[in-house]
Amino acid sequence: MREKKIFDYVRNVDSILIMNGGENQIDKTFFYLTGAKSGIFEGSILHVKPEKVTIITSALEEEAAKETGFDVMVYNGSSEKNEILKNAFNGDVNVGLNYSALTLDLYKQLMRIIPDKEFIDVSQSIDEARKIKDESELKNLREAAKIASDSFQDFIKTLKEGMKESELAANVVYAMMRNGASGESFKTIVAFGKNSAMPHYMPGNAKLKKNDFVLIDYGALYNRYCSDMTRTVVFGRADEKQKEMYETVRAAQDESKKALKAGINGKDIDMIARKIIDEKYPGRFIHSLGHGIGLDVHDHPALSPSMDFLLKQNMVVTDEPGVYIPEVGGVRIEDDLIIKKDGHEEITSATRELLEL
Amino acid sequence: MREKKIFDYVRNVDSILIMNGGENQIDKTFFYLTGAKSGIFEGSILHVKPEKVTIITSALEEEAAKETGFDVMVYNGSSEKNEILKNAFNGDVNVGLNYSALTLDLYKQLMRIIPDKEFIDVSQSIDEARKIKDESELKNLREAAKIASDSFQDFIKTLKEGMKESELAANVVYAMMRNGASGESFKTIVAFGKNSAMPHYMPGNAKLKKNDFVLIDYGALYNRYCSDMTRTVVFGRADEKQKEMYETVRAAQDESKKALKAGINGKDIDMIARKIIDEKYPGRFIHSLGHGIGLDVHDHPALSPSMDFLLKQNMVVTDEPGVYIPEVGGVRIEDDLIIKKDGHEEITSATRELLEL
Repeated sequence: MREKKIFDYVRNVDSILIMNGGENQIDKTFFYLTGAKSGIFEGSILHVKPEKVTIITSALEEEAAKETGFDVMVYNGSSEKNEILKNAFNGDVNVGLNYSALTLDLYKQLMRIIPDKEFIDVSQSIDEARKIKDESELKNLREAAKIASDSFQDFIKTLKEGMKESELAANVVYAMMRNGASGESFKTIVAFGKNSAMPHYMPGNAKLKKNDFVLIDYGALYNRYCSDMTRTVVFGRADEKQKEMYETVRAAQDESKKALKAGINGKDIDMIARKIIDEKYPGRFIHSLGHGIGLDVHDHPALSPSMDFLLKQNMVVTDEPGVYIPEVGGVRIEDDLIIKKDGHEEITSATRELLEL
Repeated sequence: MREKKIFDYVRNVDSILIMNGGENQIDKTFFYLTGAKSGIFEGSILHVKPEKVTIITSALEEEAAKETGFDVMVYNGSSEKNEILKNAFNGDVNVGLNYSALTLDLYKQLMRIIPDKEFIDVSQSIDEARKIKDESELKNLREAAKIASDSFQDFIKTLKEGMKESELAANVVYAMMRNGASGESFKTIVAFGKNSAMPHYMPGNAKLKKNDFVLIDYGALYNRYCSDMTRTVVFGRADEKQKEMYETVRAAQDESKKALKAGINGKDIDMIARKIIDEKYPGRFIHSLGHGIGLDVHDHPALSPSMDFLLKQNMVVTDEPGVYIPEVGGVRIEDDLIIKKDGHEEITSATRELLEL
């Protein structure tokens, strides 16, 4: 089904080739199209025609590939792999490639293996297909969001004075895996006190002190689909400054969410939140308001000042305003939402009241 | 220092550009060269000259970038980023790129931004530099290996009848993070019974039964460096078939390890293990004997029948023979080793005796 969706957006392409590199160059489109539950599929290839998908892989992934129900061709070593590739394209002239996930290295190899083909960039068509989620994808995304939300109740109880950021991060990941996640969807961020001023901080040895901000940005992986949520709490009593930062971010999230529905421009949503934060803390909201989530935790589309596009039904995005004051701290609140015709469905659910614990 | 090491291997390049894409296209060379402890650095760029490294990044990573001590240029939006790129190359003619980590998409963008440059593939020079580890890298790798080894003692105690694979995986990750890992270096594999016949199986809902094989393939991340180890145990009493599989793999590992030292060809090491397994289980050792580890969990070089190269001092590799019998099960034993002049230093340490638990 999904292969047809991609071909809906492309013209004049006989087939599409999805090529994985090593662990850092896996094209998630491979999993979008095959739905493979198991396996890593480094170096594996998909030959995609509107009517047929073939998995070309090594013996290492043979069992996992067969479970998908698609045709599987197994190679033993790179010369067999190249031979399979040559034959797979008999009759194809124009071959689509995902330029946004293919390395230059693999591309050069491909030009040597099948030099008689015309390569066409189909990355935008793939993005178009992948950013509108189907029912089975929404189900996985809802479950990933539910696992993260439920886990908040579990790990937030473990806060105690003197604990390290890395200890809390361990508790976060453990709670998610106990609740059904196959792992974290990205490296969990736990930042105490002024460390919360770094949006991409990595948990370290800082110890939890009374009245610290505690910022936790985390997400679950479920059937390879991601959730991504952030909560900021105060360990102890919030002072006026902390309360004001928190309430500003919360208002920015509330107001931007109200506008989230199909037909609205993503950059206008970003601007609603940005105006609220900039009024009180000029220039302190140093990232985009949100991003798509799916098989990638930073999927298309972005809700950002520079992205001019209309939201569509069944896009799934985060809404995550934040304010960051170096040497003081930061606040971010992040939820995941499915865009609907007349509004949205919020799929993450832990409280957004300022918790003082 | 490390930038000099890369320039040692290249000719006629004025500067090297390391370009990160999104979360799936982060070039670990970025961290090799900067040593950045915090941050994700999506979309960030390194401009590398033999005498100077400049980090080009967004406000999101500004703090993390400054911590490295290197020069930092911060852009706000993509037009500023392109402007910085244009100016950074004043005077450079030949620009090296890491073809094995750069997407076609970023390459095409780059050709538009700086059309007057000659691009040269320096991926092999980068690999050459990165595969010989320096003292600080070895320290991180030893610690990552120690965390994984120590954690074995912790999680192996949690085995109990009826537990799910996913539960044990949660315990594995939790143990590593409690012992100082920032996370898992790859998705932990836990396979019970016949599931162990799939080398890249992902933990699911299978329940632990008496006399099952339990295969755990896992690793810790420490300061972004990876460990990677595998143990296979029997939950209950091993039957003759299980014992024979185990002892064959163990002999293959023992014998191949004995030969591991600088100056030996990687494919000869692979062949030592392969012969031992193929004699008893023809064609059932369906992957390479080992791979390099470093910032990537599958780093250069590979110990494989098709890789013809000599091992050098301070390369770090895994030695991981396995045997896989569909519908029966599989055994793999994996350790991490630093290649030395006259032998090797084994940095993982849990017992390799067949445990019956």
